[in-house]
Amino acid sequence: MNTDATITTEAHAPRTGGRAGRQGQRMAQQAPRRPYISRRIGTFNILDEEGLSLIEANADRLLKEIGMEFHDDPEILDIFREAGADVQGTRVRFEPGMCRKIIRATAPSQFRQHARNPANTVMIGGDNTVLCPSWGPPFVHDLDRGRRYATIGDFRDLVKIHQMIPHLHHSGGVVCEPVDLPANKRHLDMLYTHIRHSDRPFMGAFIGSKRAQDAVDMAKIVFGEEFVTNNAVLYNVSNTNAPLVLDANMSGSLKVYARNNQPVACTPWTLAGAMSPCTVAGTLAQVLAEALASLSLVQLINPGAPCLMGSFASTISMQSGAPTFGTPEAGKMVLACGQLARRVGVPFHTVGSLSASKLPDAQAEQEATWGILMSMFAGANVINHATGWLEGGLVTGFEKTVIDADLCGKVASLFEGIDLSANAQAMEAIEAVGPGSHFLGSAHTQSNFLSAFYRSTSSDNNSFEQWNEDGRLDAAQRANRQWKRLLDEYQDPGLDPAIDEALQAFIAARKASEPDQAYF
Amino acid sequence: MNTDATITTEAHAPRTGGRAGRQGQRMAQQAPRRPYISRRIGTFNILDEEGLSLIEANADRLLKEIGMEFHDDPEILDIFREAGADVQGTRVRFEPGMCRKIIRATAPSQFRQHARNPANTVMIGGDNTVLCPSWGPPFVHDLDRGRRYATIGDFRDLVKIHQMIPHLHHSGGVVCEPVDLPANKRHLDMLYTHIRHSDRPFMGAFIGSKRAQDAVDMAKIVFGEEFVTNNAVLYNVSNTNAPLVLDANMSGSLKVYARNNQPVACTPWTLAGAMSPCTVAGTLAQVLAEALASLSLVQLINPGAPCLMGSFASTISMQSGAPTFGTPEAGKMVLACGQLARRVGVPFHTVGSLSASKLPDAQAEQEATWGILMSMFAGANVINHATGWLEGGLVTGFEKTVIDADLCGKVASLFEGIDLSANAQAMEAIEAVGPGSHFLGSAHTQSNFLSAFYRSTSSDNNSFEQWNEDGRLDAAQRANRQWKRLLDEYQDPGLDPAIDEALQAFIAARKASEPDQAYF
Repeated sequence: MNTDATITTEAHAPRTGGRAGRQGQRMAQQAPRRPYISRRIGTFNILDEEGLSLIEANADRLLKEIGMEFHDDPEILDIFREAGADVQGTRVRFEPGMCRKIIRATAPSQFRQHARNPANTVMIGGDNTVLCPSWGPPFVHDLDRGRRYATIGDFRDLVKIHQMIPHLHHSGGVVCEPVDLPANKRHLDMLYTHIRHSDRPFMGAFIGSKRAQDAVDMAKIVFGEEFVTNNAVLYNVSNTNAPLVLDANMSGSLKVYARNNQPVACTPWTLAGAMSPCTVAGTLAQVLAEALASLSLVQLINPGAPCLMGSFASTISMQSGAPTFGTPEAGKMVLACGQLARRVGVPFHTVGSLSASKLPDAQAEQEATWGILMSMFAGANVINHATGWLEGGLVTGFEKTVIDADLCGKVASLFEGIDLSANAQAMEAIEAVGPGSHFLGSAHTQSNFLSAFYRSTSSDNNSFEQWNEDGRLDAAQRANRQWKRLLDEYQDPGLDPAIDEALQAFIAARKASEPDQAYF
Repeated sequence: MNTDATITTEAHAPRTGGRAGRQGQRMAQQAPRRPYISRRIGTFNILDEEGLSLIEANADRLLKEIGMEFHDDPEILDIFREAGADVQGTRVRFEPGMCRKIIRATAPSQFRQHARNPANTVMIGGDNTVLCPSWGPPFVHDLDRGRRYATIGDFRDLVKIHQMIPHLHHSGGVVCEPVDLPANKRHLDMLYTHIRHSDRPFMGAFIGSKRAQDAVDMAKIVFGEEFVTNNAVLYNVSNTNAPLVLDANMSGSLKVYARNNQPVACTPWTLAGAMSPCTVAGTLAQVLAEALASLSLVQLINPGAPCLMGSFASTISMQSGAPTFGTPEAGKMVLACGQLARRVGVPFHTVGSLSASKLPDAQAEQEATWGILMSMFAGANVINHATGWLEGGLVTGFEKTVIDADLCGKVASLFEGIDLSANAQAMEAIEAVGPGSHFLGSAHTQSNFLSAFYRSTSSDNNSFEQWNEDGRLDAAQRANRQWKRLLDEYQDPGLDPAIDEALQAFIAARKASEPDQAYF
């Protein structure tokens, strides 16, 4: 399977064939797909040493003076008490530096998350970035069917489309919420869909210890019990309930994954102005405090378990209270959080192509492009919601997914940096062409044209006349054709029938063990 | 006039009034408009010392071994011969380091460009960025009238809209090409329109010495002869004819402006793959070589005259030959050019929200956002085409202009950096709110909400239900309403009647002095 060729051909080789079609096919790039981005250019540092130390001191002050609440989970209170924290009721307070010391003593700075196809295994941490699709939306949107509640059919289609996008590295988790299935069992169908229809890494189930354990058990069927004990195969996000609370649903799954040596991205989720102060510096201190407490919990439960500092910090409209994305303040916060995470010494998890737009329009891509570029310049190691997010996370958009996929390809190319080889310097080419001529047919161009530039999969760069002849489609209309093509051309990675059977048996047994419920 | 209030009110206070309208008016921000961006966060360095030295050595090698052609302008050949360059026919070759030495000896590192309203005077260089509107398109586009040849009426409307956008700092030059006017005289009408309908800085006329002299003469009417002799009041771009040629049209205006002490942005314009090698490193060496030769020409003509190193480097599709924008390679090139310009020691001019899209759609803003962010991270001092560019520069879009204007506001806010004041740290606010509560009504939020976050002028962040009720408008449809509103609410800055009369007399005399021509 060459998904790169599949997606790049799309933009240039209409099915109707003709000159453009043949040319597109002939010229489709055959470069092998990379399983993750290995950045060769640095990070952007928005804060200096003084600023970073100030935020860190403020986080320490919050952890000592206010502390953090851990609701409905007395075991956690015992763990922290034993470690020397000040526990009063459900409130846990930490001496300055305590959390950082616990984390730095044992947390790994990078680790592999394995895919069932080893070619898709990702390295998390260091100069690497892993791009994941949209996560969480209860609705989906496409141009044909409009906005509607998501079903397991939509979930399956999205997993297949993601598998066909070369620039995504991960199959993700709740790519949409299949609300047609019982709330207490749908995680089984979601996990099965990732395992069956994708051979990339995937995420666990986030809410509650029982669901988390199901994910671990299913992973053991796929990868084998011993392998799972010793290797990361399930990626997990644990959100705090900002400000300064972790509830039992989140701590429950955190504990299961930490005990099973599976990575947890400890991710304060905050909309500044509502869940944190309406200032960047205030929000940063709170985010860091919550992340430090959560990360130290992971390390106290299982020293050495992989974990990431996460941040999902955006803003609200101070006029309407509506969540806002792709904002200057969100950019400042993610850039600073990247620096803070590197000083903690763990990989950095954050978010990507977010938008409050209802449609795959100019707003959607102004906000999405802003968001993913900020996260890349911040040095993110994992970017969740790199594609598809609309309407503040209520909707996964099919068209937006493939438009954002192009953005993922662009950032991968940018962060490769500048090739300074003799071929790239092209001195002989410039000398051979000389002043006033052009490079279109030059020998250097001939020998480099296949790999010279990144090929957009969503842009129409043709002349107005050609675009007019092609039906005057806007980016969303072209994307509508593209995701259908990807779905049509989906290539099944296959699954060992014995594993498939064992998974289905596990799921059937679990479903039979309790009645359906319409709530978590 | 408070243009900031005007544009921010637009997005939140529909004319129809109602709750939202009153709320929007009540909450409109009253912060004074800033005449340019003073960046408080740094630049992004894509190349290290070794990479920069390599590109510089390659540029020197090109200037020595190939040299640059100066067509149809023997005076320039004399100037370079006298300065010690090797002149053979129209080819001029330079010893390594010669151009850089000439430039560094006398070129200012920063300077002011004065506006007729002193509050709008801009500082060019250092940590400052000046955003200019679209430049050059022969067509305009809006949702009502579609794509059409531009007229002087469109030109006037665009100048008025730009004047109403707080986040633009410059009235620009050929905001669109008024093709209904004679080609040899329309520069007079364009200059008059900037002077009459805007009180911000503006650009000169770029093609040919005669037109440039007209611009200088008109500027003298506005600012007074002595003031113009001693101060920058006309901004000018001089493009090379890549590869390695400067023609008489461009050198003619360059000479006039340099002699009159007016700033020239020496800007190699190249589409890599056609006008330069299909590699980033090769293009960078060629761009630097062309810029060094042009900048040294300015300094030899008038030592100390203000000048900028420019770069407008994008790519072509290697499949179709079509120009492409917002590409990874364009990003790499502008980031590197910013570094190269700082090492030359002159301000850096580049380009902004470029797109090949035909419409103000998702493609347009994915490419535009990419482009302006790269230029900002590159540390650009002047960004041309910060708004409105569509279709590879063939079209200025009315809707895209106001959508991009929001982007200009966002970058201005981002590059202010992070406020670390005690108020911004908000420690007491977090302590007062405490775990599990919210900040919506907190005292800190109450006292900061007016200035807390940047307010988008183009995004709809409302709920789906509200958006549905408001007519389900996409970003382009909302922008259509917005530019009409700006035009309706345009506030005439006024012009001294004596100056107005003198300008009109000058223009009438110049128009009478030669027959109309349909070509330059």
